[in-house]
Amino acid sequence: MKQFMDEDFLLTTPTAKRLYHEYAERMPIVDYHCHISPREIYEDRKFENITQAWLGGDHYKWRLMRSNGVEERYITGDAPDRDKFRKWAQTLEMAIGNPLYHWSHLELQRYFGFHGYLNSENADEVWDLCNRKLAQADYSARSLIRLSRVTLLCTTDDPADSLEWHEKLAQDDSFDVQVLPAWRPDRAMYLEKPDYLEYLKTLSAASGVAVDSFAALIAALKKRMAFFAEHGCRVSDHGLAYVMYEPASSAQVEAVFSKRLSGSAISACEERIFKTAFLTEMGRAYHEMGWVMQLHYGVKRDNNRRLYQALGPDAGIDSIGTSAPAAELADFLNALAETDELPKTVLYSLNPSDNAVIGTIIGCFQDASCAGKLQQGSAWWFNDHKSGIREQLTSLASLGLLGNFIGMLTDSRSFLSYTRHEYFRRILCDLVGGWVENGEYPADERALEKLIRGISYDNAVRYFGFSV
Amino acid sequence: MKQFMDEDFLLTTPTAKRLYHEYAERMPIVDYHCHISPREIYEDRKFENITQAWLGGDHYKWRLMRSNGVEERYITGDAPDRDKFRKWAQTLEMAIGNPLYHWSHLELQRYFGFHGYLNSENADEVWDLCNRKLAQADYSARSLIRLSRVTLLCTTDDPADSLEWHEKLAQDDSFDVQVLPAWRPDRAMYLEKPDYLEYLKTLSAASGVAVDSFAALIAALKKRMAFFAEHGCRVSDHGLAYVMYEPASSAQVEAVFSKRLSGSAISACEERIFKTAFLTEMGRAYHEMGWVMQLHYGVKRDNNRRLYQALGPDAGIDSIGTSAPAAELADFLNALAETDELPKTVLYSLNPSDNAVIGTIIGCFQDASCAGKLQQGSAWWFNDHKSGIREQLTSLASLGLLGNFIGMLTDSRSFLSYTRHEYFRRILCDLVGGWVENGEYPADERALEKLIRGISYDNAVRYFGFSV
Amino acid sequence: MKQFMDEDFLLTTPTAKRLYHEYAERMPIVDYHCHISPREIYEDRKFENITQAWLGGDHYKWRLMRSNGVEERYITGDAPDRDKFRKWAQTLEMAIGNPLYHWSHLELQRYFGFHGYLNSENADEVWDLCNRKLAQADYSARSLIRLSRVTLLCTTDDPADSLEWHEKLAQDDSFDVQVLPAWRPDRAMYLEKPDYLEYLKTLSAASGVAVDSFAALIAALKKRMAFFAEHGCRVSDHGLAYVMYEPASSAQVEAVFSKRLSGSAISACEERIFKTAFLTEMGRAYHEMGWVMQLHYGVKRDNNRRLYQALGPDAGIDSIGTSAPAAELADFLNALAETDELPKTVLYSLNPSDNAVIGTIIGCFQDASCAGKLQQGSAWWFNDHKSGIREQLTSLASLGLLGNFIGMLTDSRSFLSYTRHEYFRRILCDLVGGWVENGEYPADERALEKLIRGISYDNAVRYFGFSV
Repeated sequence: MKQFMDEDFLLTTPTAKRLYHEYAERMPIVDYHCHISPREIYEDRKFENITQAWLGGDHYKWRLMRSNGVEERYITGDAPDRDKFRKWAQTLEMAIGNPLYHWSHLELQRYFGFHGYLNSENADEVWDLCNRKLAQADYSARSLIRLSRVTLLCTTDDPADSLEWHEKLAQDDSFDVQVLPAWRPDRAMYLEKPDYLEYLKTLSAASGVAVDSFAALIAALKKRMAFFAEHGCRVSDHGLAYVMYEPASSAQVEAVFSKRLSGSAISACEERIFKTAFLTEMGRAYHEMGWVMQLHYGVKRDNNRRLYQALGPDAGIDSIGTSAPAAELADFLNALAETDELPKTVLYSLNPSDNAVIGTIIGCFQDASCAGKLQQGSAWWFNDHKSGIREQLTSLASLGLLGNFIGMLTDSRSFLSYTRHEYFRRILCDLVGGWVENGEYPADERALEKLIRGISYDNAVRYFGFSV
Repeated sequence: MKQFMDEDFLLTTPTAKRLYHEYAERMPIVDYHCHISPREIYEDRKFENITQAWLGGDHYKWRLMRSNGVEERYITGDAPDRDKFRKWAQTLEMAIGNPLYHWSHLELQRYFGFHGYLNSENADEVWDLCNRKLAQADYSARSLIRLSRVTLLCTTDDPADSLEWHEKLAQDDSFDVQVLPAWRPDRAMYLEKPDYLEYLKTLSAASGVAVDSFAALIAALKKRMAFFAEHGCRVSDHGLAYVMYEPASSAQVEAVFSKRLSGSAISACEERIFKTAFLTEMGRAYHEMGWVMQLHYGVKRDNNRRLYQALGPDAGIDSIGTSAPAAELADFLNALAETDELPKTVLYSLNPSDNAVIGTIIGCFQDASCAGKLQQGSAWWFNDHKSGIREQLTSLASLGLLGNFIGMLTDSRSFLSYTRHEYFRRILCDLVGGWVENGEYPADERALEKLIRGISYDNAVRYFGFSV
Repeated sequence: MKQFMDEDFLLTTPTAKRLYHEYAERMPIVDYHCHISPREIYEDRKFENITQAWLGGDHYKWRLMRSNGVEERYITGDAPDRDKFRKWAQTLEMAIGNPLYHWSHLELQRYFGFHGYLNSENADEVWDLCNRKLAQADYSARSLIRLSRVTLLCTTDDPADSLEWHEKLAQDDSFDVQVLPAWRPDRAMYLEKPDYLEYLKTLSAASGVAVDSFAALIAALKKRMAFFAEHGCRVSDHGLAYVMYEPASSAQVEAVFSKRLSGSAISACEERIFKTAFLTEMGRAYHEMGWVMQLHYGVKRDNNRRLYQALGPDAGIDSIGTSAPAAELADFLNALAETDELPKTVLYSLNPSDNAVIGTIIGCFQDASCAGKLQQGSAWWFNDHKSGIREQLTSLASLGLLGNFIGMLTDSRSFLSYTRHEYFRRILCDLVGGWVENGEYPADERALEKLIRGISYDNAVRYFGFSV
């Protein structure tokens, strides 16, 4: 029997162990999509206790606690932090097989030196241990990022954002990790939201372009894209229910936008027309700028209206959506490819049943402008567990070129979640190592080194065009 | 090589074996959803031969026999029982990897002491062996239930049912297994069926409420629910093509119902309006009564019209339906949660592609009223095989708290099918044992014991609120 | 560690090895669905070099090369064949876990005696080796087929085809492999295509029936079916986006057809009406002729319009479609079954999420006319890899009778792809061998031999009614 989460955690063959310890473990991290706050990095935030670092904004953990019947006051409410931590420790006792069980213990091992397993009995002891560490100078946001050997990370930023914290960080010689903005124009796209017109004012102010037409909207965004590019932005991101394709004439699109500006209600079809045009214009712009387009889809958000009203978005009340038609995704990509304006694109669906669909669609649009121009993004959100990651890697390998895969990202709000890269790399090395041990791939050390280093780090650096 | 289906069947590691033999194997059974007849229990039915016990109403076996080209007279027709058994034995020869291969042999082992493998050569020998046993006094319905160490079982009952056999059983001191009714109001919901108006008359008579409006329908049902509750009912069940959500005003719902009462045809949209209202009202009532709501969906029934006309429903001619929109399921649950009227709910889809969808939807509606208030039901019907059970458990563990899972049920018409609980527990112990052996979960004996006992038995007892 | 792709490739247990080497390996091949050219067989085509044999028409390889950023001129363009081969060798370096990695090396081993692994370093050496072999007399089309121990193969042929090469082959005593036509009437079904009316002229000419009505269309096709039957045809094939069911009266169908004849545009609903009627008529005719109906669905074809315009269909720009409603498939099969006109039918979906759907639908329509009358076809196209094949076999076994499965086909345009049968048989033997080693199936040698031989060869011969 293997020890619980020892140095060979998830590595089941000698080749897997060698690949991980020789190559993957030593690679730095480029975290090309996350949700941490550039301000907190600049201000080098410190945490009073482990509850603040762990439970503050982590809706993954909130869900599990609710599943264990924990009262909301111990989750997002005003209960003391120590009690919240105890409730989390109790919840972990039921969480066998859940990635949060592994992530939590990887974090306890790597950042706090705790190698046991957390439960309600030792919760107080672990609480004390973590908090002693967090009080040390080297447990600030910047220290944790450096300790995790991150060379570059991309935050997630609204087009109207001033990027002031990115700017300050760029000017701060004392921190050598690149913190780049990433372009997330969801608020400019979701015209069905009640605060849309208000948002347009913000965007008008930020861009200096009065957004009084669809053309003006795109012009305003392009000005902001130029501003983002000056700050090193190389990548965009869109959060979508599904990738749609409802082409229409410019006049039709302008008519929908104008209707929305006037305050009238928009039909479902009009929404589709607008969003298709919006995403198409964005895709063209990304192509022109050499940016990568990330499309995250297959989500149904904010399902529990009571919790939504109390907590707002990202409250742990999202689920997988099943309404993504493969045909529209393919047609959308084709529309860009037809005029040779398809940017490098990464597709992520929250629905694991879409793995093979994405794997086959990307194969239709690859071209000579970039090896692996279209990518299937790594197992995302609810799929970011051992079997989900393994299935995504297996599907990608079966349908395309695993060797060109740009690998993992944290997608996280936490400074402690870089261990997700470790988790991913262990699963990757176990899969590849198993193939080698099994005679399904040659024991060609040079090829394997290139492969593992590539997927761990090198491919993403090349793909996004980062200078690290 | 392991022996065929020996005591360590499906258990591949030492920890898996220990978990099963120390904990799971010894737990009794609470079978919270099945289709056996309370009358047959009360009358302590005996079987003339193994064909009656095995092939009488088992449409799982019928399908396989048809797949082997067996003529219908040897399946549901008038061929001699001995010949039918021979045909089944021949069919098994082709059934490698099918759960019926395993279930049949588990039943032969546990109930008849036969440890070989059944085929066309030894069919007559096994026939004689089984029939000798069945002729013994201790092979009656009650004896088989007791032998299986069942402490409680829930049948499946129409609201208009008199529950006379449940009542008689409750008064019979000689049988100490609880046999409770479960509420299945499908006939009151399927207003599109030709015999719907006739059914309403039955319901009116049973409830003493003249069902002349939707409000009266609900009132009649609530009276019957009170009657069911007096007989110990704690759980409902709905068989659905999919969970829909088409909200409408009371007036609209009444209009649809009134149209149906008048004999007019109902449109698809009207059907959706009625069914949404019906299920919402039922959900509220379950919440008030403290009952569990089971929703079984993702089925397309009675596909082969020729066989349907000859044999009626449950003839082995059902298939997986793919029309279940995740969004409507989430919206339906939200409608109940918004007014704090969501009952404890168990979701089962026949489509295995829905595993992750259900796993994420239940996470949105958990609350402090009950640990694991929303459950993903165990791998159902066509998914009730080794890989289906393993996938359901893995998905559930990856997305929620496996430790709170209420586990297995037979969903069966047979007194011999309690071995499905054994099958499930072996797969569960193998999965969990593998995680421990692999260092993915600590070898914490106390935690593991609680986990295995919980999923095998304790969690269901607590969840449904049974007194055993 | 196992050697790379040695004689026990993919065989991980002693029983798996024995089953493969004792039984599966020795069986001949009946390739009941492929796309090779009967003319090339008749003319006994030789290949100048390995690029012609490997990359000539193989859009699977084209896709992978594009995924590696290879320029189109090295894929389908006018670059020298040697350079194309080098580009393919480079691409393979990224293709770990892809079936093309395995297929390529199986072909290099079996046909060219090369047991290393191809990469950019040894590409020239392998190029020379293969081309030396291809220059030998015994590396012609016929020799490769014979060397692969094929006893019978079915090509894919349009109803208007003269079958002249099949006829010549039948008369050629020097080649003892049966080369039969297979009926693929897609061009007669796709009335939405711009060249449809032109095609009808071709069909009218070939059949001697003026196709001026739907009834005449069916009559013309039936004449051609009789002609195909004279040439030994036993099987049809349809390529479909999805299996639809939109029943209509004869008059309605004739009206749609007449509208199309007149050159008017056809609505989506009219298209569905026509195609439903067409496929129903074909199904009835197959039933009458005793032919097998193969339905391949779940595809979205020709997604990349730029490449389509340059290269036409089968350019490596197809993807999985997600629009196949299980309900319509079931209703279509029922419509044929209701009048007892359902032919033997093989269902293949490109969407692996449909595995369980198909597995349950076929179970509804099995009957005594043939063991395994309805079949789930083997893992098709994008699913034809190790995990896809294993999943299809596991799903089929879990839901039906694996023992009656008709097994593998190449679906290929290449004379070198018979190793896909080897690939399939190894995976089959590993799965079955694992069950036996694990105690899940008895070590009954006679039963296992029958099972493995059946799925490898015997079942298909029986099912299609071939005389070999």
